[in-house]
This record gives sequence, structure tokens and C-alpha cells, in this order.
Amino acid sequence: MTSLMREPVFWIPYKRREEGMRDMKNVISAVCIRCGEEHEALPGITTCRKCGGMLDIQYDYHYIKANVSHAIMSGRGEGTMWRYREFLPVTPESSCRKLRVGGSPFYEVPHLAEQMGIAKLYIKDDGINPTASLKDRASAMAVVKAQEAGADTIACSSTGNAASSLAGNAAAAGLKTYIFVPERAPKGKVSQLMIFGANVISVKGSYEETFRLSAEAIDRWGWYNRNAAINPYLMEGKKTVALEIAEQLRWKMTDYIAISVGDGCTIAGVWKGFKDLYAAGMIDRLPRLISVQAEGCCPLNRAIETGKAWEAMAENTLADSIAVGVPRNADKALHAIRESNGVVVNVSDEEILAAMRLLGTGCGVFAEPAGAAGTAGLKKAAELKLIPTDATVVSVVTGSGLKDVANAMKAAGEPLTIEPEMNQLLEAFRKSGGPR
Amino acid sequence: MTSLMREPVFWIPYKRREEGMRDMKNVISAVCIRCGEEHEALPGITTCRKCGGMLDIQYDYHYIKANVSHAIMSGRGEGTMWRYREFLPVTPESSCRKLRVGGSPFYEVPHLAEQMGIAKLYIKDDGINPTASLKDRASAMAVVKAQEAGADTIACSSTGNAASSLAGNAAAAGLKTYIFVPERAPKGKVSQLMIFGANVISVKGSYEETFRLSAEAIDRWGWYNRNAAINPYLMEGKKTVALEIAEQLRWKMTDYIAISVGDGCTIAGVWKGFKDLYAAGMIDRLPRLISVQAEGCCPLNRAIETGKAWEAMAENTLADSIAVGVPRNADKALHAIRESNGVVVNVSDEEILAAMRLLGTGCGVFAEPAGAAGTAGLKKAAELKLIPTDATVVSVVTGSGLKDVANAMKAAGEPLTIEPEMNQLLEAFRKSGGPR
Repeated sequence: MTSLMREPVFWIPYKRREEGMRDMKNVISAVCIRCGEEHEALPGITTCRKCGGMLDIQYDYHYIKANVSHAIMSGRGEGTMWRYREFLPVTPESSCRKLRVGGSPFYEVPHLAEQMGIAKLYIKDDGINPTASLKDRASAMAVVKAQEAGADTIACSSTGNAASSLAGNAAAAGLKTYIFVPERAPKGKVSQLMIFGANVISVKGSYEETFRLSAEAIDRWGWYNRNAAINPYLMEGKKTVALEIAEQLRWKMTDYIAISVGDGCTIAGVWKGFKDLYAAGMIDRLPRLISVQAEGCCPLNRAIETGKAWEAMAENTLADSIAVGVPRNADKALHAIRESNGVVVNVSDEEILAAMRLLGTGCGVFAEPAGAAGTAGLKKAAELKLIPTDATVVSVVTGSGLKDVANAMKAAGEPLTIEPEMNQLLEAFRKSGGPR
Repeated sequence: MTSLMREPVFWIPYKRREEGMRDMKNVISAVCIRCGEEHEALPGITTCRKCGGMLDIQYDYHYIKANVSHAIMSGRGEGTMWRYREFLPVTPESSCRKLRVGGSPFYEVPHLAEQMGIAKLYIKDDGINPTASLKDRASAMAVVKAQEAGADTIACSSTGNAASSLAGNAAAAGLKTYIFVPERAPKGKVSQLMIFGANVISVKGSYEETFRLSAEAIDRWGWYNRNAAINPYLMEGKKTVALEIAEQLRWKMTDYIAISVGDGCTIAGVWKGFKDLYAAGMIDRLPRLISVQAEGCCPLNRAIETGKAWEAMAENTLADSIAVGVPRNADKALHAIRESNGVVVNVSDEEILAAMRLLGTGCGVFAEPAGAAGTAGLKKAAELKLIPTDATVVSVVTGSGLKDVANAMKAAGEPLTIEPEMNQLLEAFRKSGGPR
């Protein structure tokens, strides 16, 4: 079962495309992953016109190989996702320098590797992005493709990182946004949207009703659609995290990549990135994916475990960014996990909170719950001997803990509280095992 | 009047210094800015042993000139504050690669410049740092100097960005922290400290009582003291934002630098950075400082305006990070503003909130109130004709808006709220001037 067919299929009319912007020499076409139908890779394409399946951008790896190398790449000054332009579906004329997306920190943490009983561990902190999540990579791409399509307005329905990243990246590019949120959306996240000047429509209804109204509005006004479930370019933005990881590893891939999974778009994007590099001869082996979901919401991992089609699940986890009971990128995600000979692990909320503490105390990285879930899953996979003790692993942190202070407080524990007297401090230290 | 004399003066005993780490060829000494007494630049120094005045690190600019140039600098891969090592008081042996501090984005925003009626405007977004504020630069320096001093524990008393940056940077370096906060500290900020594994002592008392207890504890246990008011190295960390700005401008300085001012350490650090570059021949002119304080708390700007000594003020502003009624770095800050022939501007809370919207909608930058205050002051300075219409300006954003979501909500306004019906959307758009 997939939910793709239930969604209306919209196309930005071709006539909205600006002339003279066809020149993507590295891109061949956009192919339907379900029926194989080939489409011209126009900036406004969404899902397959024939069957409604997701499209996948196809590259000319001969062209890419002829135009880029390790040496060329490492000589570049550009410290953003656009550093990898040969691998990206944008025209040479497109201006991609709005917010500084990508180029996020990469830390080797030997003491955490030792603690987990694996050979090497690297943390990729993608919470360090302009709007504090990996989703900036997709939204930056959406903004460029919208401009290529000649659109001046982008829309989506979301309450989370997709929405805030779209609002921020569009503001920097001077594009208008319409963002539909269910009324229950947290005020803090809505304020982030409003600060970026998004037109926010708060809908008194469920997420499904909100999504449907947004779809109708996008259709009516011809806005550019930033929806990872139907826009094939967003995954191409997300894949840049994989390209960066490979370069930060000096093109020597680790055995595994651990990442949290919600609607499936991110893990599919990560896999696409590594496959692109492999096809272009930039890395000599592919890593295995460690797909981490929450125990209370793991439809994709369950499908892998049972070998059956995925089924919708309830959304019982505090990690809101991966609480996706009906994943909209199931096809691509399941394909990626299987093709990589991946490992699946489900983690409890307690394990997620513990991973937040581990990342904070162990390497000074403050992750939101969904951002720490990948590390929680890696730890569990090591404990369960799902990966060997000589494994080398990159764990991707997908969003900043400042996005969700309430859950950080759950994870963090309580301080010592005393009167302003040295005697009380000594007494408190004595009880808690502090200094004498 | 200054408050420096009221503070106890602590020295980490010299014997705590590790042997073989004296080799700072670029540093001459640490000189008291009040009495001129010269001190050896040991890693544990604090204030002047003779008079209690602040110390200032003195460099050998001949040595620096002989060892660095524009070309050498631009060839470096290191995208952090440690890129400027010739200008920094650290030994060659010191490992400075913990969190990736510095290398923050720099945006030219011509449309905002036009809107403000100035020639050029650049935004330096220092909210994009590991713990989301400029203070990471000072804390990263504190961590390195603590390690040079042989200390395994750092302490401070603060409720804000200094505390969270210390906790995060120390965690990444494997150092222990003791952080004293008054009980009224916001739970969210305390949770950030706890996530990073700081030992947080919540004191049932005023900030003054909290500070005093922390001083007593630091003295008792010999912890390394991360307090910008007495540790001369912190300003040297902060100055790296100026070095970066100069390089991002390709060494062609703007006429002005606008920045918000609280205890004075940051603006003094920025000035020190530009003066270092000028002394080393890396820039050919110095910018003028635009010192921005809140109308409800502007002791330093008032001293400049009146030409008298500064006097303590109440702390009436929502911009908590610059709500400093008794600035602890007054001497250096006032000297910097005067020496640069600076401009002072005080802004209301409403003007700060408006600047948050301007940065968000105009360039996709989400600033905390104190972080947006510099931009608010620049806008006001342009309106009041305190700066000319052909001025070129860099405005520094000192912290991320995700640190203070409550005030973002105040700034941001309310979304449209409707039932999930196209008719209601059309009606709401009709009333609000949306699309038809």
C-alpha cells in the first residue's frame, strides 16, 4: 500500500518556465520509479503524469566524470551544498547563493566510538544550518527550482522543519510563501514562520484537511509546490549531506551511515548521494544504511523486518520530526534500505532522550529528538551486535535541539538548587559526589 | 565609576601550567589598561595583580607581519576562528579543533541597504555557531587556555549565552564545568546547560549573590575562570568575528560596523580585531563603531553622550543578552567607541522587534532580540542622519532567535486562522489583501 495515488497530481504549467534555462548538461531526464515513464526534467515537474508515481532525476555520469574530480572539488572555496554543482539538477545560470546552506560540521568522536564498542564514529551535525535542520538543503533547492520555473511564490503544508526552512530560504531569495499549518501547530514554530514573513494559514482541522486545502490552493494559484512527496528535486537537495560526508571523510567511506527516518525522503536522498558519487567514480564503495525509527512509529522498518508492504501506524513518539505514520516517500526509502543491505533499528523515547544527553555531554552537539534518534539507533545496533565491533560509522544529526526545548528539558535532568551559602554548596556537593 | 575593584582577583597558581607551552611567539605580554603594569601572558592570568585593572594581550606585529599575508590566509582550508592563529594568544601545540566555532555566514543585502538609505549593507550572522551565539568564540578560547593552564574544570556564573557556549565547548573538549545560575534563570536555558553535562548550581538569590558564590567556589577549588570581566583571553576569542568580517570583505573595510552592546566585551573585542589587522598591515583603514544599546539600559552609550563616567542603570529591555546595568568591561568598551570615533544609538524594544522582522523577512536571518539590536540601531542611525547616505556598513547578528522563542512570538504577529474550506480561504485573502 502506498498513499501516493490518493494525492492530486499537479503540474506547474510549462509556459511558466523561463526561456533559456534548459542547459542542465549533467541531467538526462526524470524517470518514474513505478512505471519507468521518462519525463523531461523541467523545473516544475512533480509526479509521473502517467501513473502518479514519484519521479527520480537521472544524471549523465560520463559528463560528470569528465567535469569533476577529487582535486577539482577540494580546490573549491564554496563551503555550501552548491559546491557539488555537477551533481545537482540546476541550470548554470541559476543563482544559488542565498542563505548559506550546507557545509555543516563533521566531528570524529573516538571516545564515543569506544563507549559504543565500534571502531570509528563521526557525527555530522546538520543542525548547524541557517534554519537549524537538514531540511534547509531541500528548501534551498526548492527555491532555486521555483525561480527557474518562473514562479514567485512557493507553498507547502507542514508544521515542522520543512516549513521553517522553506520560509527562511524563500525570504532570503525574495520569494513569497504560503504555508498551511494545522491549528494545533506549536506557537513557537508558527512564530519562526511569521518572522520569516511567510503567509501562514492556520487551519482548524486535521493535518489531512490542511494538506488538502493547501493542494487546492496550490492548484488554483499555480504556486510552486514544496512538498517532498511529489517534488523530485527536494531529494536532490537532501543528498548533498551525503556528498559532504564523503568529502569530509576524504572520499574513504565508512561501513555504515546511521540516520533517523520519518517520511523516507532524507534516507532516500542520502542513498542517492552516495550512489551518485559511486557512479561517478568519486568513492570506491557504498556504505550500508542504518535506518532508525521510533518504536512507536516505524512503518518503514517494520516493512523491512517483515518483508511485506508497509502499513500505516500510529504516531507514538516524542520525536515529532519522524512521527510519520503514513510515510510519503516509502517507495524510495524502502528501496534504498534494501539496496544498501541496510540494518533497521527501532528506538524508544527513553533511548532517544539518552542519545540527546550522550551527544550533548560527549561532543557538545545539541540535537532535537529526531536528530538524536540516529545516534540512539546506532548505539542500540552495536549493543544488539547488528553491526560488528570493527565497524566505522557516520551518525547524522538532522536538527537542532533549540527547536524543541521542552523535550530537551525532559532529557536533561535537574540542577542542584541551594541558598547562596558556601556551606550549602559543600553539603550539596557532598551528597552528589561533587568536589570536596 | 567602575565595578572592577569590587571583584575579588583570582589567579590560577602558576604551577598548574603545563611545562613546554610557553611558545607564543606572536604575544609579547599582558598589560594592565589602567596602570600599565606588564604581566607575562600565562594561560591562567586574570586581572592586574597590582591594581585589579583589566589586562590586554599585546602582540608582536612585526612577527605577525612576517608570518602571514592575504595570500597565505586565503589559501587556508580551516573554516573556523582558528584560521587566524597568528593573531591569537594560543601556543602552537594547543589543539583548537573541538567544536567548529566561527566561519559564520556573511550576506550582502542590497535591498535592505536601499530600504535604509545607505550605500551597502552586509549582515554577519553569528547566530550560526555551535551553541548559536557569538559567545562560542570566547568560550572556545577559554577551553584552549584552560587546557594550556593544565586545568580540567572551568567555571562561570551566567544565565545566558556565555554559559551555554561554555558548557557546549567544554563538553566537546572533555572538560568539566561548574555553572552558577540565579534560580530565576529560564528553564530552557538551564536545560541547554544540562544537556551539555554542565554541573549547574541554581542559587536562590540575586545575580550578585550567585556571582559571589561562584567566585568563592572558583577560589576554593582552583577552577579555570571563564568570566569576560576578568579573563583577558575571552576578548581575544571574540575579536575573531572582526577578522572574519575583514576577510569576507576581501580586506576592503566598510565605513561602519554596527553591533549591540551589553557588558562591553564584544564591542571591545571587535575593535581589538580591527586594530590588530591594521597594525599588521592587513587592512588599510579602520571602521567606525556604531554602538547600539537598549533605551532602557544604556549606561555605556550614555557615558559617551554625556562625556562623563558611566553610571549603573536599571535593566529595562526585553533584549536580555544586552540588559547589563553594570557593564563589566566598561573601560575597554568606552575606549573602543571613542577611539573609533564611534556613533552611539539607543533603541526601543519596539524598534528591536521590528528589526527582528526586518532581518527575518529581508534576508532569512532569525535573530534573538539582542542579536537584532545592532540592525535596529543602524536603521535608526540612518534615519537620524547620524551616518551619511553613502555609508557602507556591516551589521553583526550576535545570537539566534531560537534562543528566545517567546520574544520571537511578540515580534512575529498572528497567522490567518480559518476552517478547512476554500471559501474561507478566499474570504480571508480578500480581507487581508491576499491573492484572488
